[in-house]
Amino acid sequence: MRNIKLTIEYDGTCYSGWQRQVDNVSIQQTIEEGLQKLTGQQIPIIGSGRTDSGVHARGQVANFFTDSSIPSERFSYALNTTLPPDIRILDSEEVSPRFHAQFSAVAKKYRYSIILHPHGTAIGRNYYYNIRDRLDIDFMGQAIKSFEGTHDFSAFRSIGSPTKTAVRTIYQADIIWEQPYLYFDISGNGFLYNMVRIIVGTLIEVGRKRIPPHGIQDIIWSKNRKLAGPTAPGQGLCLEKVYYEETEQSFT
Amino acid sequence: MRNIKLTIEYDGTCYSGWQRQVDNVSIQQTIEEGLQKLTGQQIPIIGSGRTDSGVHARGQVANFFTDSSIPSERFSYALNTTLPPDIRILDSEEVSPRFHAQFSAVAKKYRYSIILHPHGTAIGRNYYYNIRDRLDIDFMGQAIKSFEGTHDFSAFRSIGSPTKTAVRTIYQADIIWEQPYLYFDISGNGFLYNMVRIIVGTLIEVGRKRIPPHGIQDIIWSKNRKLAGPTAPGQGLCLEKVYYEETEQSFT
Repeated sequence: MRNIKLTIEYDGTCYSGWQRQVDNVSIQQTIEEGLQKLTGQQIPIIGSGRTDSGVHARGQVANFFTDSSIPSERFSYALNTTLPPDIRILDSEEVSPRFHAQFSAVAKKYRYSIILHPHGTAIGRNYYYNIRDRLDIDFMGQAIKSFEGTHDFSAFRSIGSPTKTAVRTIYQADIIWEQPYLYFDISGNGFLYNMVRIIVGTLIEVGRKRIPPHGIQDIIWSKNRKLAGPTAPGQGLCLEKVYYEETEQSFT
Repeated sequence: MRNIKLTIEYDGTCYSGWQRQVDNVSIQQTIEEGLQKLTGQQIPIIGSGRTDSGVHARGQVANFFTDSSIPSERFSYALNTTLPPDIRILDSEEVSPRFHAQFSAVAKKYRYSIILHPHGTAIGRNYYYNIRDRLDIDFMGQAIKSFEGTHDFSAFRSIGSPTKTAVRTIYQADIIWEQPYLYFDISGNGFLYNMVRIIVGTLIEVGRKRIPPHGIQDIIWSKNRKLAGPTAPGQGLCLEKVYYEETEQSFT
């Protein structure tokens, strides 16, 4: 049995999210069905983590075990012939049997995209959150730096998250302002449920001057979800990259 | 009667093109229907020119005459409430009664977008033409410069074009290579039917080394459509901007 690692890009607009669900079409299910068409076998795939409805990925990672005769690097080509155009397998490779897309991940990078425009955008409507009023970008740029480092992010997760500890490390959090586009690039060793979207929703409150830039630290310390801002919509979020230790990834 | 100029962004994916047709939904018709909902009147709008099925615009321009009481600059906001999200009116303003979106236009700028990737792109699938094999970008960069200047572009228009003269001036034609994305930015005083798409299709042949870079000049001189390359698909094309003389545009 070979362990195959997939790198996946998807437009999440028409899906209920990554994870297989009973009544809705998920990205995981769509890929598993493609894999079944290809191999004739029901093979479960393991994702690096869930993405919600409407959330996109340029670098989601998944793995699966197979005894198919298809060469590892041909799985991307073969799978893409069975998949709809809004899901593309960008790469496939054989990895160590120990590789697990979720548990072997050491870091992830997300981008959240906003368009600041009174009329929004037609072409980017599924990939940007449209904000019509003005935001103070300088305030947001100061505030985002408070998220960097190791913190208990209890205030920045949706209620009902099953994870035990809320301590996570944000390696880097940056704002990129290319008028009228505003990007938030956030990388860290792990993210709680809705964490990036709540961070962005809180930074928007800073941009609207409802929360002062130095107020982020207090919200983190409070561990109180109610003090943070609303959860920004899913369509602006994109999982850009999942990082693994080189040694775990390479086939031995 | 006021003459109102609209600046329009649209995602052409789901439309038969700009121009009103009997059996298909066009962008023009969709905006005219929105205008009718708003004013209660059937008002024809004049576009700067047609765009084909699947072609996009970030800066299409149209104008119409109205005696509605809606303030000129509020038309964008009001119309957007009646329009689907893949059409956005970015701006509305009152212009001189002499302003005509098509006949007053002095120049246009188009961008054609390609992704060079064996698996294409999920997120940009409606906005890029996917080429899977390699292209010689240097050759294409040399070749594109042959289009600049005033030429008879008979070899670069689709058969059946009703226009009398095929002489047009290309002010600037550039290639921008941001791997894996390849952009063609072309501005000129006017464009024949499918002209940009045939220019791009011919440059792709240069990239594939089927036409030498210095061969473009011969194809222009031949005025023979059969010597140019195929028409590149509509989805990669976007009308970026329409230019007008300042004096014609401003209300006097």
